[in-house]
Amino acid sequence: MATFVLVHGAWHDGSAWQATITHLEDKGHRTFAPTIAGNGKSAKRNVNHAECTKSIVDAIVADDLRDFVLVGHSFGGTIIAKVAEAIPERIRRLVFFVAFVLGDGKSLLDEIPPEHAAMFSEMARTSSDNSLMLPFPIFRERFINDASLEVAEKIYSELSPQPYQPLADRLDMQKFYSLPTPKSYINCTEDTALPPGEYGWHPRMSNRLGLYRLVQMPGSHEVMYTNPAALAEKIVEAGRD
Amino acid sequence: MATFVLVHGAWHDGSAWQATITHLEDKGHRTFAPTIAGNGKSAKRNVNHAECTKSIVDAIVADDLRDFVLVGHSFGGTIIAKVAEAIPERIRRLVFFVAFVLGDGKSLLDEIPPEHAAMFSEMARTSSDNSLMLPFPIFRERFINDASLEVAEKIYSELSPQPYQPLADRLDMQKFYSLPTPKSYINCTEDTALPPGEYGWHPRMSNRLGLYRLVQMPGSHEVMYTNPAALAEKIVEAGRD
Amino acid sequence: MATFVLVHGAWHDGSAWQATITHLEDKGHRTFAPTIAGNGKSAKRNVNHAECTKSIVDAIVADDLRDFVLVGHSFGGTIIAKVAEAIPERIRRLVFFVAFVLGDGKSLLDEIPPEHAAMFSEMARTSSDNSLMLPFPIFRERFINDASLEVAEKIYSELSPQPYQPLADRLDMQKFYSLPTPKSYINCTEDTALPPGEYGWHPRMSNRLGLYRLVQMPGSHEVMYTNPAALAEKIVEAGRD
Repeated sequence: MATFVLVHGAWHDGSAWQATITHLEDKGHRTFAPTIAGNGKSAKRNVNHAECTKSIVDAIVADDLRDFVLVGHSFGGTIIAKVAEAIPERIRRLVFFVAFVLGDGKSLLDEIPPEHAAMFSEMARTSSDNSLMLPFPIFRERFINDASLEVAEKIYSELSPQPYQPLADRLDMQKFYSLPTPKSYINCTEDTALPPGEYGWHPRMSNRLGLYRLVQMPGSHEVMYTNPAALAEKIVEAGRD
Repeated sequence: MATFVLVHGAWHDGSAWQATITHLEDKGHRTFAPTIAGNGKSAKRNVNHAECTKSIVDAIVADDLRDFVLVGHSFGGTIIAKVAEAIPERIRRLVFFVAFVLGDGKSLLDEIPPEHAAMFSEMARTSSDNSLMLPFPIFRERFINDASLEVAEKIYSELSPQPYQPLADRLDMQKFYSLPTPKSYINCTEDTALPPGEYGWHPRMSNRLGLYRLVQMPGSHEVMYTNPAALAEKIVEAGRD
Repeated sequence: MATFVLVHGAWHDGSAWQATITHLEDKGHRTFAPTIAGNGKSAKRNVNHAECTKSIVDAIVADDLRDFVLVGHSFGGTIIAKVAEAIPERIRRLVFFVAFVLGDGKSLLDEIPPEHAAMFSEMARTSSDNSLMLPFPIFRERFINDASLEVAEKIYSELSPQPYQPLADRLDMQKFYSLPTPKSYINCTEDTALPPGEYGWHPRMSNRLGLYRLVQMPGSHEVMYTNPAALAEKIVEAGRD
């Protein structure tokens, strides 16, 4: 049995993993799903990427977790890469789940279509706290295309504004790219949160990992909600030795 | 429950949807499957794209259909785009099902590999009525690769010559690209009617829709025949709000 | 009922097909799985590509096999193309199963990422018999990513060193590309033995076949071991008329 530390994506918090955790624990695994600093309904949004990373490292060290599989979803991929730089000796394997694998010196905003980056920047600039919310039509069509409208609306109501700075911070990824930690990539075949093709998740992000294990499943960017049973199985396949 | 207007592709007529209609109506939906002018066993082939579009608009208006989901298969994608320009207020959502989404000013023949376009043009030129038939080996291997030979032969016998002019007419697509109508794309993962890659259906055609919902299913270009139950489910997923 | 001649890939021998053969024969088909010269646990490795091809042609002629479907896996794709040049009149259809379809004048090493080719060349140069073994971490992550570690280790123990020369020989493919023999391509959607994208199996290798039938299945490069029942079904679909 394995230990999984699950790191959510933008607009989400640790509760995103609730259904997936149930399935993983039913199989006998241990799970931890900390919330990234600046995320969650009542958090203060004035955080940068380093503070986001530190909040996850602190949660792991506080529980003295070791020999675990570290899973990052979407924006969470930028976090687990930096967590791996900070405490590589504790991590058995990294699993990028439709997640960003940043190029060296790049920010998340550098890696998405320029018109999306410009929209996010403008939303943050005109917000009261340098944060941005994902417009519902984009969430419904691009992120959770495999759900009914009712489910999409319910999940959307659970989201909270995303701090802008962690998306804009450019990251030195040189240490990450030199780590010998085993790596896997879970791709969802109907995920269009990044537009398929030139800007798509796979193989653009996945191939950057060098030697990695590919695991795929049907579904959207939000299979934590729309198919948590299958996701739990794929996390186990991606996380095993 | 929804209303679906289903527009067939080249060489086909409205009867292509028969099995899919059974599954949709079993779920309680209403369906209409008009035949495009110039198509069907006994039609005159001397039609252009505008006349094809008009025949579908006329069928919709004659039945006074409103608030429906308009589905176009293959060549039918070029028709539903122009129908949407003509009567946008009646359409709830457009569903492109392994369908052409033409670039502005382009014809269908401009969007396929040049050697295929040249073959079709030569076939029409040497025909008695400016039409062309799809050669059986191409239909069997590229279009209905998931069927037995017997099924492929039976379906092929139901096809009829395709008028050439609607494939050659270049279309002003500017109004289409400005319509706020919601849009979905159904991609079949083994469809090689357009060769995968540079000329493939997805993401080449789908991404042109801008904000769209991606739905995928296994199978060939002709899943109306080879898997109508699954297609009906995917049409419902693609067509819901 | 059909006759299948199954040609294995690099590092493997005819025993790779054992489980798949059981499923094919349960369906009533006849199967033959010769081992390529230079492959297998005790073979001498000093063979070239022409000798590899001749060993398969000789096995087919010795059993006087006719009207069969010739299946090649991976490196085996380079062999079945040359077997088809030698005895086209005996072959009903060619099935390339996540297999190389070499460009004219190319070697297998010319078709893989240069850093992989360089690694293989260096391994052969420093071997005692001009052969190379696939490092286990690469086999586990890239080739058999859908297996447990235990299964991966067991299969790896059955592999043997691959002669280098057949991978380095550049092949005249002009006759192959002029053969009218029907062709199919089976692609495994999680196969990363070739990195997905620029160097991927599909559509890079498959589209070179011109008019071909695409069949896809989930799984890795080694579905002969991880899902032989599904592979047998897909071989039947790919091999039928």
